[in-house]
This record gives sequence, structure tokens and C-alpha cells, in this order.
Amino acid sequence: MTDPAVLALAGGVGGAKLADGLQAHLGDRLAVVVNTGDDCERHGLLVMPDHDTVLYNLAGIEQAEWGWGIEGDTHAAMAQLGAYGEETWFSLGDRDLALHVARTARLQAGGRLTEVCLGLQRSLGIAARILPMADEPVRTEVRTDDGWLEFQDYFVRLRQAPEVLEIRFAGIDDARPTAEVLAALAASAAIVICPSNPLVSVAPILGVPGMREAIGAARQRGVPVAAVSPIVGGRALKGPADRMLAALGLEVSAVGVARLYADLADVFVLDAVDAALAPGVEALGIHAIVTDTIMTDDAARARLAGEVLGALEAR
Amino acid sequence: MTDPAVLALAGGVGGAKLADGLQAHLGDRLAVVVNTGDDCERHGLLVMPDHDTVLYNLAGIEQAEWGWGIEGDTHAAMAQLGAYGEETWFSLGDRDLALHVARTARLQAGGRLTEVCLGLQRSLGIAARILPMADEPVRTEVRTDDGWLEFQDYFVRLRQAPEVLEIRFAGIDDARPTAEVLAALAASAAIVICPSNPLVSVAPILGVPGMREAIGAARQRGVPVAAVSPIVGGRALKGPADRMLAALGLEVSAVGVARLYADLADVFVLDAVDAALAPGVEALGIHAIVTDTIMTDDAARARLAGEVLGALEAR
Repeated sequence: MTDPAVLALAGGVGGAKLADGLQAHLGDRLAVVVNTGDDCERHGLLVMPDHDTVLYNLAGIEQAEWGWGIEGDTHAAMAQLGAYGEETWFSLGDRDLALHVARTARLQAGGRLTEVCLGLQRSLGIAARILPMADEPVRTEVRTDDGWLEFQDYFVRLRQAPEVLEIRFAGIDDARPTAEVLAALAASAAIVICPSNPLVSVAPILGVPGMREAIGAARQRGVPVAAVSPIVGGRALKGPADRMLAALGLEVSAVGVARLYADLADVFVLDAVDAALAPGVEALGIHAIVTDTIMTDDAARARLAGEVLGALEAR
Repeated sequence: MTDPAVLALAGGVGGAKLADGLQAHLGDRLAVVVNTGDDCERHGLLVMPDHDTVLYNLAGIEQAEWGWGIEGDTHAAMAQLGAYGEETWFSLGDRDLALHVARTARLQAGGRLTEVCLGLQRSLGIAARILPMADEPVRTEVRTDDGWLEFQDYFVRLRQAPEVLEIRFAGIDDARPTAEVLAALAASAAIVICPSNPLVSVAPILGVPGMREAIGAARQRGVPVAAVSPIVGGRALKGPADRMLAALGLEVSAVGVARLYADLADVFVLDAVDAALAPGVEALGIHAIVTDTIMTDDAARARLAGEVLGALEAR
């Protein structure tokens, strides 16, 4: 491929790591469509956990241990917010807070979500574009024994302790892929579904009315799609994907994930520890690639991204 | 007076210092009506410089050198806002930012300005009540050779360099004294006009339609009013009051200020360095009190407040 553009679909930390590896190869030829279902209002400010995690990773300033937030950030404002009786379970660093303040101000001044996000990304000097899956608000909610919960209420406040019985994406019927997402899709020579939670990170993106059709049209044009498994050795590398799959009666394995993408993916990348599952993936009609998928450092991110791009180029 | 309640009118640093001294004597029997004409929107957040300066002084956490902001505050969020291309000339500390974030969120959730402010004050444990002069937005604007400027544009960004040719309070015709202000006035045995800029701190308060009448009605009931001069030795202790008075053709002296309050004040407090001006004040029909008005520390704040209260009690 000559200077091919690539579109990635990503949720939070795992997706951000692979997106960062892809950016190392592609620079400004990478567009990352991020899940906005995790977005929430905190203290009157719009917080976009997946967008921001990808942003900080592509800017190289992510908090190294957790993968989200900014390395070395302080929490003076949050402590003071607590003094005013504001909830503090969703902790925002001082430098991180600036992103939410600037973004909310620009949206309230009439800015469109995608344009506002692109402007903030340019300020941090990242090469790739991070595109919200839609400008319209979509909010993931999970049903537990205590009823329906906002996603961050479940994910952060309750630390994913309750069993998830059902998932819904409020507002998604009114959402549409943005012009920027459709243009990036039209310009892309390949699509990568990052190792993000298939049920609450990738599903909202694919659930935006028109998104699956647009990706399907790209595949009709010969644009291959690769997906990378977030399940390794039967467990999620991060987050509750494994328990969610189990609770919803789905197979907790790389094959289980591949099955969710069977109608979309041409290539499925699974970890070396799951090499024995490759035939199960191939049985779905998807080409299986077995490699080390654990992205422990920048080199590992770039190496995995290179393998994924190589596999796509070979299609 | 047995447990008298006192109402103070205050702008920024000078007013906040005397209000703090009054609180030392009166505790929860003090209500401070603050100027809201300096309020502004920064990064989508409502900033209330005078309210907040009084708040931090009454809470004992004010930045010692300047008198506004929080002692020891950091500026990580502001630096990051700058990285996003936001204007940084109005610098907000991280802990200070939390106040603006919490307040704006509560207002956007439907809270009324006075109630929101009282709630934030309670969280910091201050005894007195700080009452915005009105719930409706009032914005002080000054005309310079460059035309009309928002107040903080003139005051902070341009460091009060341009000459002020005219002053107006946008929105004041639609403002009204709040129920809390009127109740505090009705309950007060004395009124103190703090040593704040008469033209841009006290004038907006007195300019709220109905405010002068309400204070006049209190005086009819025998409630005395004392004012403390912000002009000492022909100069403003802080801020541009002296240059503003001169530019508007007013006398730059304690007598010049007393003249502005001639229809309101029963007592006028001027600094010892201006002792020779006392007869000029008395000639206006106002009882002059000469004392040290420089509030260099907490003890000096309380001492001056005590003298003012003593003079009022003697009326």
C-alpha cells in the first residue's frame, strides 16, 4: 500500500495503546474513531474517558501505571471540590480538568463536538485524528440487580462489582456517524478494531445507525478489517470484559470475541497463549494471526501495530 | 446594642479585610453584601472576584500577599488551559478553580445564585453570610480611549492602564435586591460601607434598583450607616480608585469619597494621615472618625472593625 490511511475503532486503555502503536507507523494517516458511550457529566463538565485516554496516549503524556489520566498530574482542585461537597469518586487531575473545562466552554459557545475535540488534539500536537463516533450524546447504561446504572457509576464508583445483566446505549437511535468519520472511512485502505471491550467500547461505535453499513460498504470496496482480541487466556487484560461476556452467556475467550466480529472482520489477532484457539477463529471464516498482543511498552505497541498492518496489507 | 446584626457592603480586597474584622466581632450576626459587577465568565465558568475574595478572607485562606486567591494554590490546570490555547491572563489557581467549577455546575443545574453562594460558604465553615447584591447578572463596563471594555479586561488584562472616561453597569436595570439582602437589611442594627472603590465596587451595589431606598428606609428606622475611606493620603490603598476619581473630575481624597456617600452615611472613618480633612467631612453633615485604617494583619482588621462598630453604637 502506498501511504495508506487507516481507520481504527477504539475504547479506552487497550485501544489507546494500539492506536498509539498505529500512530507510530502512520502518523497523520491514522484516524481513530472512539466510543463516546462512556462520556459523562462531572461537576457540569463533559468528561470523555475514551477520547481522553486515546488523546493522552497519542500525545505521550498518559499516566504510565494506569494508562489513563496525565502522568504526574496533581489533584488540588479535586480535593477542594470535595470540600464543597462535590462527589469525588470520579477523580480528575488538575491538568486533566483543564481539558474538560476547555472542551465544555467551547461546546457551550456553540462548537460541534468533533470540531472541538480536533482543536484540542491539535493543541497537543498529535499527528492522528481522534474522532468521536457521533456528535450526538450516547450514554451507555448497564442493568444490574440494582436496576439501570450510568456507565461510570458502574465502572468507577462501584468498581465494576455488580453483575451486568443487560447493556443499552441511550440516545444511540438519534446518533449518526459524523462527516469526519465517513470521510475517514472513505479514505481508509484498512480498518482496525482495537483490543477494547467488545460489549461496551466497540459495540456502541458499531451501533451508531449507519456505521455498520458504512464499514460494510468499505469492505465491499476491498478494504480489509482486522480485530485484535482483548481477551487473553480467557481473561480481559483490563476491565470487566470477561465477566460481562460470561454474565451475558457469551464465550469468554478470543473465539468468543471473534464470533462477535464474524460479520465484519477479515483478520483476527489473538495472543500466543491462545494459539490453540486459532482453528476456532478460522472456522468462523476469519484469518487468524497469533502473536504477542501484550503491549508493555512503546516498542511493543509499535510491534503489534506493525503486525496488524502487515496482516492487513497481505489481504 | 444586644447582639446586633450588622450589614456590610463590600467589594474586593479592602472590603474583604474589614468584613473579616467585622466577622471577628459579630460571627453569624454579620451579613456582607458584595458587588457582582466584577463577575465574569472565564473558560465557561462564572468567576465572582469580589464574592470570592470576601469568601477566602472570611475563611482565613486568602493569599496573604495579594489578598485574593488561596494561599499556596497551584496553577497546573491554568498551564494546561494555556496549552489548549485558552487565554491565561486571568489566572485561576487549582483550588480556586474548584469554586468556579462547583458554582457553575450548581447554577446550570438550576440553582439560584445567592443560594448557591451560601451553600459554598457553608462548606468552608464561615460564620457570616456573603450575599450577592442581586441574583441577576450585572456587568461593570468602563469606557476608555479604546471604547467600552468589560471590567476584568480593563482591570486584569490591561492592568488598569487606560484612563477610565465613563462607567456603566450593564444589566443593573433588571437587577433587584434579593430577599436575603432585604431580610439582612431589615434585621440589621447598623450598616458599614467598607473601604472599597466607591465607583466600581460600592456604586453597583447602591445602584441596584431599590437598594438605596431600602437603606434609606433602614436609616429612617434609626439604623446608622458608617463608611470607611478607601482613599488614604490622596491615594487608593489598592487598585485604581484614585485615578478613576481624578479622571471623572472628582476630588481624590477622603473628603471626595465622603461626598459620594453624603446622602447615606452618618459616620465617616478616615485615616490618621488625613486628620486635617475631618472638618471637611463634618462640613458635609457626617460625623468624622479619625483612626488608623491600614489593615496590615488580623489584629488590625479586628481593631478597625471594633472602632467602626463602636462609632455606630454611639449613634
